[in-house]
Amino acid sequence: MTVAARPAIPAERFEARLAAAGRAALDAGFDALLIGVGADLRYLTGYNAHESERLTMLVVGRAAGSATLVVPLLERPAAEAGSRVDIPIATWTETQDPAEVVARLVRGAAASPSRVGISDRLWSLHLLRLQAALPAATFASATTALRTLRMTKDDDEVTLLRLAAEAADRVVDQIAAGRLVGRTEADVAAEVRERLLAEGHDHAEFAIVASGPNSASPHHEASDRVIRAGEPIVLDIGGTLGGYGSDITRTLWVTGGDDANGPDDEYRHLFAVLRGAQERATNAVRPGVACESIDAAARDAIATEGYGDAFIHRTGHGIGLEGHEEPYLVAGNDEPLGEGMAFSVEPGIYLDGRYGARIEDIVVCGPAGPVPLNTTDRDLRVVPG
Amino acid sequence: MTVAARPAIPAERFEARLAAAGRAALDAGFDALLIGVGADLRYLTGYNAHESERLTMLVVGRAAGSATLVVPLLERPAAEAGSRVDIPIATWTETQDPAEVVARLVRGAAASPSRVGISDRLWSLHLLRLQAALPAATFASATTALRTLRMTKDDDEVTLLRLAAEAADRVVDQIAAGRLVGRTEADVAAEVRERLLAEGHDHAEFAIVASGPNSASPHHEASDRVIRAGEPIVLDIGGTLGGYGSDITRTLWVTGGDDANGPDDEYRHLFAVLRGAQERATNAVRPGVACESIDAAARDAIATEGYGDAFIHRTGHGIGLEGHEEPYLVAGNDEPLGEGMAFSVEPGIYLDGRYGARIEDIVVCGPAGPVPLNTTDRDLRVVPG
Repeated sequence: MTVAARPAIPAERFEARLAAAGRAALDAGFDALLIGVGADLRYLTGYNAHESERLTMLVVGRAAGSATLVVPLLERPAAEAGSRVDIPIATWTETQDPAEVVARLVRGAAASPSRVGISDRLWSLHLLRLQAALPAATFASATTALRTLRMTKDDDEVTLLRLAAEAADRVVDQIAAGRLVGRTEADVAAEVRERLLAEGHDHAEFAIVASGPNSASPHHEASDRVIRAGEPIVLDIGGTLGGYGSDITRTLWVTGGDDANGPDDEYRHLFAVLRGAQERATNAVRPGVACESIDAAARDAIATEGYGDAFIHRTGHGIGLEGHEEPYLVAGNDEPLGEGMAFSVEPGIYLDGRYGARIEDIVVCGPAGPVPLNTTDRDLRVVPG
Repeated sequence: MTVAARPAIPAERFEARLAAAGRAALDAGFDALLIGVGADLRYLTGYNAHESERLTMLVVGRAAGSATLVVPLLERPAAEAGSRVDIPIATWTETQDPAEVVARLVRGAAASPSRVGISDRLWSLHLLRLQAALPAATFASATTALRTLRMTKDDDEVTLLRLAAEAADRVVDQIAAGRLVGRTEADVAAEVRERLLAEGHDHAEFAIVASGPNSASPHHEASDRVIRAGEPIVLDIGGTLGGYGSDITRTLWVTGGDDANGPDDEYRHLFAVLRGAQERATNAVRPGVACESIDAAARDAIATEGYGDAFIHRTGHGIGLEGHEEPYLVAGNDEPLGEGMAFSVEPGIYLDGRYGARIEDIVVCGPAGPVPLNTTDRDLRVVPG
């Protein structure tokens, strides 16, 4: 098996992202962006810090070169080792108030800050303290400013997404080829996690193994239910590789080796409808098409066959340093797709109390159409299990 | 090896906690508590949901029996399976605004809600939308209301913390007995994570393996540095078992099998000071003693020997369903310890650019004094590695 080398994002890329973030803050009318631990911080600085009750925060002003990283004193060496950009680091000690340190920096960037952007995943604990420290400022999501940057993946980011997708493809194939009947969902989920790591993932984030009637629950938590012959399994798995996410769903039907336990006619029909809808939605991907149009392509194909009420979620979500990020393929989102955007295309049909199915690929919007990163067989996998 | 059975928290316990939360909201002057995904939600309902851009929120009114769980429609079955309490579930679809659903429930609990408690780890994305949906309300940390409940562990919670601590103790002993010299920190950290899972943890959350000069970085991220003979390793590891955290630090010195590579006199002295400070702080634990007094006990012992500036963090943090929670053992916190509180006692001494050391136990405040849950040898482990 040939595995492509993992690209290392060069330091200049982070400098450029940081400069672009300052310009984006200006364009979006923010006096400053306050970026807590998470994907935005990692995207802009390379620093992959741990979430904590101790505030770590990148303060990005509108002026070029005005960024400062605020960290707890005890994490200064970790921040110096983890950050890929050459910016000042300000520290606070255990008995100081970090919100005041941040507020001083914001007032340094704009004497009377009126509008501040805040990263989406910052804990409320921290946001409430920052609001108290900057009482005259309005707080809004920093994603308003950063979304275009984050949504548009460069070649290195697409390579990491592809490597993650290929690894996840292999795990699906391994699970489909192995024993399933007689095992619990939770046991299979544990195997999925081990295999994701063995195939090169940094972290195994989730492993939905939804068997029998549980396949009608889109976000089923793998349980102690024992998998039986003659039922479907929705397998929705993913993690991160080089920081970038994988997320694939395939649907299996386990027979226990007896063809009499194959799928019934209704399930075969339902799955054929779903397969067509997923293909139709994928084929609709190209620059300039609205996100909601991709959702509509899948939804119309399913509704036409009478399953409209059984497709109870959006068609997809963006993916990158976060497992779910913009753009969202959902009714009401008229954002036009652009080259380099990466997202899931994952319609599903769920018949409550009976069974369900879902097919999901990660797809990149290429210059002339869709580039699916997951390529393993999308058909219903009828396997002995 | 005899391992105690893992207690299952009975359903009535969750009902009682939820009722107590309503009373605590009333006492703290909140019209409602808005609890997002995380430890508070798990504590009150048993539901261990995944963090997401889709809002899941427990709305707790002041009146008994007024709690409602708001979840995305596609997660209704998962919420029904995961929740241990019998409360109404309200759903929202992909094109509805969940903040409006929550706001309606809050207005149902209090016609003109003026003060709302919000869980500390709720993402800012959600808090900003809730603030917009309830513009007349003041938002404050729900921990004000929930802290006493969460801080005071019942017997089942202490049993889970003890099982987690004992598992972590075994992993430390296994690592200390194994090969270390010539391996990278990251490789040892991966072994730690595997062993935590093998010893019964649900998740391996962190594995600080800080060797040589890196031992002076309290939150060092395990790196590609190769461990050499004749240097210390600070090993700070933990995860969750049955939802409850482990967190232990022991310091090793690896000789490579040659006694000439043992610790120098200054390190032996520094470690003896630290050992005494950790013991002194632990022995100061008893009901009624202020948190800051435990910090002062450790800090004074270290400062007296001239290392005051080298102890750059608080002495400890509470632990339970979160790895770091109240009470914090830090200067300025005059909260008196109470029976059943569980927290780390973890002084450290760090000489920048040279080396450092830390000793950490999880300790429960018993009726008459400290009950350390980590009991494996706290002395400097001089090992061949």
